[in-house]
Amino acid sequence: MKTNIFLEEAQALVLDRVYPGQECYISLDDAMGRVVSQDVQAGENSPPFDKSPLDGYALQAKDTENAGQPGGVKLHVIEEVRAGYTPTKKVTSGTAIKIMTGAPLPEGADVVVKYEDVDRTGDYIKIGHTLQAGSNRIHAGEDIVKGEAVAAKGTLLTPPFIGLLASIGIADVPVFKEVKVAILSTGDELVDPAQELQPGKIFNSNLHSLRASCLKLGVQPVSFGIVPDNEAATAERITEALQETDIVITTGGVSAGDYDVVLDALHKIGANILFWKVDMKPGSPIIAAEKDNKLIIALSGNPAAAFITFDLIAVPLVKKMMGLGSQLPLKVSATFVGHFDKESPQRRFLRAQIYRQSDKNYIKLTGKQSNGILKSLLSCNALIDVPAGSGRLISGQKVSAVLIGSIDEYS
Amino acid sequence: MKTNIFLEEAQALVLDRVYPGQECYISLDDAMGRVVSQDVQAGENSPPFDKSPLDGYALQAKDTENAGQPGGVKLHVIEEVRAGYTPTKKVTSGTAIKIMTGAPLPEGADVVVKYEDVDRTGDYIKIGHTLQAGSNRIHAGEDIVKGEAVAAKGTLLTPPFIGLLASIGIADVPVFKEVKVAILSTGDELVDPAQELQPGKIFNSNLHSLRASCLKLGVQPVSFGIVPDNEAATAERITEALQETDIVITTGGVSAGDYDVVLDALHKIGANILFWKVDMKPGSPIIAAEKDNKLIIALSGNPAAAFITFDLIAVPLVKKMMGLGSQLPLKVSATFVGHFDKESPQRRFLRAQIYRQSDKNYIKLTGKQSNGILKSLLSCNALIDVPAGSGRLISGQKVSAVLIGSIDEYS
Repeated sequence: MKTNIFLEEAQALVLDRVYPGQECYISLDDAMGRVVSQDVQAGENSPPFDKSPLDGYALQAKDTENAGQPGGVKLHVIEEVRAGYTPTKKVTSGTAIKIMTGAPLPEGADVVVKYEDVDRTGDYIKIGHTLQAGSNRIHAGEDIVKGEAVAAKGTLLTPPFIGLLASIGIADVPVFKEVKVAILSTGDELVDPAQELQPGKIFNSNLHSLRASCLKLGVQPVSFGIVPDNEAATAERITEALQETDIVITTGGVSAGDYDVVLDALHKIGANILFWKVDMKPGSPIIAAEKDNKLIIALSGNPAAAFITFDLIAVPLVKKMMGLGSQLPLKVSATFVGHFDKESPQRRFLRAQIYRQSDKNYIKLTGKQSNGILKSLLSCNALIDVPAGSGRLISGQKVSAVLIGSIDEYS
Repeated sequence: MKTNIFLEEAQALVLDRVYPGQECYISLDDAMGRVVSQDVQAGENSPPFDKSPLDGYALQAKDTENAGQPGGVKLHVIEEVRAGYTPTKKVTSGTAIKIMTGAPLPEGADVVVKYEDVDRTGDYIKIGHTLQAGSNRIHAGEDIVKGEAVAAKGTLLTPPFIGLLASIGIADVPVFKEVKVAILSTGDELVDPAQELQPGKIFNSNLHSLRASCLKLGVQPVSFGIVPDNEAATAERITEALQETDIVITTGGVSAGDYDVVLDALHKIGANILFWKVDMKPGSPIIAAEKDNKLIIALSGNPAAAFITFDLIAVPLVKKMMGLGSQLPLKVSATFVGHFDKESPQRRFLRAQIYRQSDKNYIKLTGKQSNGILKSLLSCNALIDVPAGSGRLISGQKVSAVLIGSIDEYS
């Protein structure tokens, strides 16, 4: 069992052991936020045929060669074609077909002239200027050509992607199976917020914040509730969770105290412990273990520590299981504003807000940094990565940070 | 009826007419992405009592005054208290209580000393150094003080907010009612991607991309399908949609052609037309109307035009209905890279990608800009706002843009 390893080694150790789930086909209605499981090619052109971008008349450009001369040219309107219908006649020299926006260009026509640019009398139109062949004509395949690769494996399905797939007639899309994440909290002191608080107890927040983090990420959280600090009960609940889900996240019981039973419970079920303890503050006593080709990530029970280590270690894992190509959080640099008066013998992640001002990144602390403080996470979009051995932080100093939210919100 | 108005006037006209929905209480499990409907105050301290941040012994600091002298001081361990339980005894001079991480500090104790820092023999511990009162002690209310405002009306519920509400025992949270958005597409030429494509027809993408946009925004889309270009049928379907949802979005049939029936259908049902046509490209022929205190926003049927005007006009509206305080898209400036060779007699929004390089914003076009092109929306996170009367765009020029995605992805 490895212990006190670097965060980067911990991330690599777990990322190496997970893969995207199986493929399934789902309806476009359910596809938002899912990840494409195989390269998708267009089976159709989009648009499927040459069409008119406006309401007008389809005709042959060469008929308008002399239209600039007094009297212009006169053409016989032989049909009208609306969007959704097809012309029954061809355009030949001397004729035109009235055409609506989106209607297919009739055979023989090579240009469309706008309504407003002709005079119509009875079944005839008069045109007073020369037209260029190809004007006002949308070509088949202008957006997507049949056979073109439209979505690569690993593509996150966003609204325009879903629109594009619809436009080429893809109603069911191959995606990776939805990831199910088990969340359970250990601790005799925990009660659910829906229960009455008894002396010595605290409300369990981890289950709720991590559940919400899963929903934000687009995966399905499955709650396995609160387990007492008891090795057998913990082992049993983890076993259940492994059977029903793809990855198990626990909180609490990972330190070296008399009642920290998670490591023992993992040994008891025969899990292979990948590591215990990562060299970072907060959240150091994290455990990663493997059993039946599934991972168990056991986080600290301190709310901020659980939240931060979930973002740094569990989120990349879950993203890989979703099938996303890019998993690790973005690193950014910024100028520190304010002061942090503690030294950092150990590597430390500080809750902070990165914001833009006059086209530069600045970063400031969002409040108290203790393990249990949730308030400083509310407006936190980045974690300052303070290297081991650093002194105090002072204004103006360049720092490195990992992005856990969006800079845009604070710019 | 106003016509050819500025985008900003159009946004203001519709925003003035919508309000957040009614309040309801929902479980924290369902609260992710919802918006708080009233200021929430903490009914409890978090943590609820003074507790220990580590495994150790709770005692009186003054007992260690002479601990630095040879032999240190010896204290009698009179009890053990685990997290989740309460001490039954008080700490008095000469005694200590063994305490686990998270357990309540016993009465009489004012400091906790770590396990590793004492020698224990039988029921006695020996301490070899002086301790400061208050060390290693988490105070009740360190994160949240009872009575403190924890979430203001209009707060978007994110994972840390949900964790924080859980930590103070709020299991049900007051939020604005979920917004239901009706989406319907008009057009004889449209078939759903699940159907067979017939000659002259195209696949309808708008319903699918706008449905996904609603899901991304956190509101509930309700599909009212495809309606033919028929005034009575359109009027009937809009009426149905108004009854079942909070806002109706339509696509198609908004130009001035012979078969553009949406404006007539809106007149037929007695809707008050707020405006028709906004001075912008693409998507100019947008209609906003009001009926029974609900809004109908009728967008162009061209896929890119529908998508862009949805983002610029419908999204701010829907955000206000969700209860969010900030509704309009962010404006950013950036240096243009590339070239756009058309002049812009009319105000124009160009699909573009804004990205960061050496701490500066740059922006480039994402592809073809025609009304019907969806492909250039795939990697688009911003729309360049080209003022009416502008010439061609050239590299190095400063441009203004509205953000419709995140810059972070491309930095």
